[in-house]
Amino acid sequence: MKAAINRDPVIKPVRPVPGDTLGIVAPASPFDRNKFQAGVQVLEDMGFQVVWAKDIFEKKGYLAGSDVHRARAFHAMFADPEIKGVICARGGYGALRILPLIDFDGVAADPKLLIGCSDITVLLNSLVYTCHLPTLHGPMIESLASASMATKQAFSLMLSSPTPPALTAATPRVIRPGKAAGTLVGGNLTTLCHLAGTRFAPDFSGCIVLLEDVGEQPYRLDRMLTQMKMGGGFDQAAGLVLGSFKNCGTLDAVHAIFTDIFAGSPFPVMAGFDVGHDDPNVSVPLGIRADLDTEQGLLEFTESLFC
Amino acid sequence: MKAAINRDPVIKPVRPVPGDTLGIVAPASPFDRNKFQAGVQVLEDMGFQVVWAKDIFEKKGYLAGSDVHRARAFHAMFADPEIKGVICARGGYGALRILPLIDFDGVAADPKLLIGCSDITVLLNSLVYTCHLPTLHGPMIESLASASMATKQAFSLMLSSPTPPALTAATPRVIRPGKAAGTLVGGNLTTLCHLAGTRFAPDFSGCIVLLEDVGEQPYRLDRMLTQMKMGGGFDQAAGLVLGSFKNCGTLDAVHAIFTDIFAGSPFPVMAGFDVGHDDPNVSVPLGIRADLDTEQGLLEFTESLFC
Repeated sequence: MKAAINRDPVIKPVRPVPGDTLGIVAPASPFDRNKFQAGVQVLEDMGFQVVWAKDIFEKKGYLAGSDVHRARAFHAMFADPEIKGVICARGGYGALRILPLIDFDGVAADPKLLIGCSDITVLLNSLVYTCHLPTLHGPMIESLASASMATKQAFSLMLSSPTPPALTAATPRVIRPGKAAGTLVGGNLTTLCHLAGTRFAPDFSGCIVLLEDVGEQPYRLDRMLTQMKMGGGFDQAAGLVLGSFKNCGTLDAVHAIFTDIFAGSPFPVMAGFDVGHDDPNVSVPLGIRADLDTEQGLLEFTESLFC
Repeated sequence: MKAAINRDPVIKPVRPVPGDTLGIVAPASPFDRNKFQAGVQVLEDMGFQVVWAKDIFEKKGYLAGSDVHRARAFHAMFADPEIKGVICARGGYGALRILPLIDFDGVAADPKLLIGCSDITVLLNSLVYTCHLPTLHGPMIESLASASMATKQAFSLMLSSPTPPALTAATPRVIRPGKAAGTLVGGNLTTLCHLAGTRFAPDFSGCIVLLEDVGEQPYRLDRMLTQMKMGGGFDQAAGLVLGSFKNCGTLDAVHAIFTDIFAGSPFPVMAGFDVGHDDPNVSVPLGIRADLDTEQGLLEFTESLFC
């Protein structure tokens, strides 16, 4: 019942370069209009044209419009030949609801870079697992509005580098030492956990798994990891890299949970990467092969993100 | 990967009667000692002898001691021939962690009534699914300390009635009308959701599923139900009965989520039962056949809880 990584063949998205058009979608929750405009400005300052559907501002409680509306908008962006990359307005909640509606064959037919994080994690990984299409765990429109220079520069650098720039642990903490090689997948722990038992649940075999979260108490982190481990999700994982755990209790408490739960696991676990809900939120590609070295606190990508 | 209800044979626990000894276990989080004493007093006032292991007060962060400690204490109570029923001190979090350590054959060999709710939901249902042993979704020691007379009387009545007393919706709200017959299972939605993808995930086929929760925002309820539905968990369910949803947003918001998610489901869904984290928390047996009639707002049990 788990989606397995199929590395052969892997399709790659086109690289969006300044002058190209990026399309904004809102597959999850509605967002603040002022922050949206400010985020658009950031992309325009980077030299991109930016477009969005007129009805992107729809709101249905905690969702940015109905499931059909959000899925249709997602498909429209991927089908438009003028669009060279697709970035999400905001996470929140809602991407899970549209997974069964996504036309993965259609997305794979016109491979574009999908950019987002948080709730968008389920879409990022589903494109990696189902389309074999790498995606970008990176900023979203609403967060770009107030993002630090570091976040914005890392995003720019990711889009402009031939091979994705290596990621160095900003506050390195080795939980289990070692080296690992594998495809980087993952993102937000909570949303990954809510794929458990569905056909979209990622099989982490051979993968380096990125995990980050926000606002989840330590016992909740424990509960999610215990569940996913009990379900066999980490049995054949190659390694774990931990991003930020903002408002999840003390970092020591967070690290203690990973130390405890992965005590008997054979793979390296390294914390302290600037990825997730804190700032900086450094962009990292998912679905791309990487090497992890806990001694150096380094995650290096060994293939290109773009075609 | 789901545990299926096996109705044949079903073993039944002995009935604890006044004068009998109840044993207290703490399979999840540590608890308040004063409330514990007050809860013990409530059971003693009901005429029971009450015992607990000296080391029940162990504390390891948010856990009442190590996993091995908690599992061992659980086994010790079930193995003791003097003990006629086992009641939990508190939920919180931790029952999930000891599921793989539970000797279900040992529990089934000396069938006793396990009593608890909230985090204990995973134990209650695992005994139903794995041992075919009915359990009691009811009060715990810490909550008994401040429980209303209604909660205490419902608990007493459940233990003393030949067939379990019917449950009437206190604030009836028909979400999907109809009648259903099936084995009552379920309890706390969040903890049930954290079984997804594990071998303990309950298959609700032919079951009337009780769901309640506390402190989960509407979008989180949506996320859990969406996940469990996407995983096929409700495909063959017989019906849903909703208990309290305390601090989960307005009841209208909660009901709207169930209305939305189960719009295309063929089974009845009825809200407004006094079961869960609010008070009264009426005791209900799990693993026992029941009839649901939404027109009458009635859940009637059609077999005895005890042997």
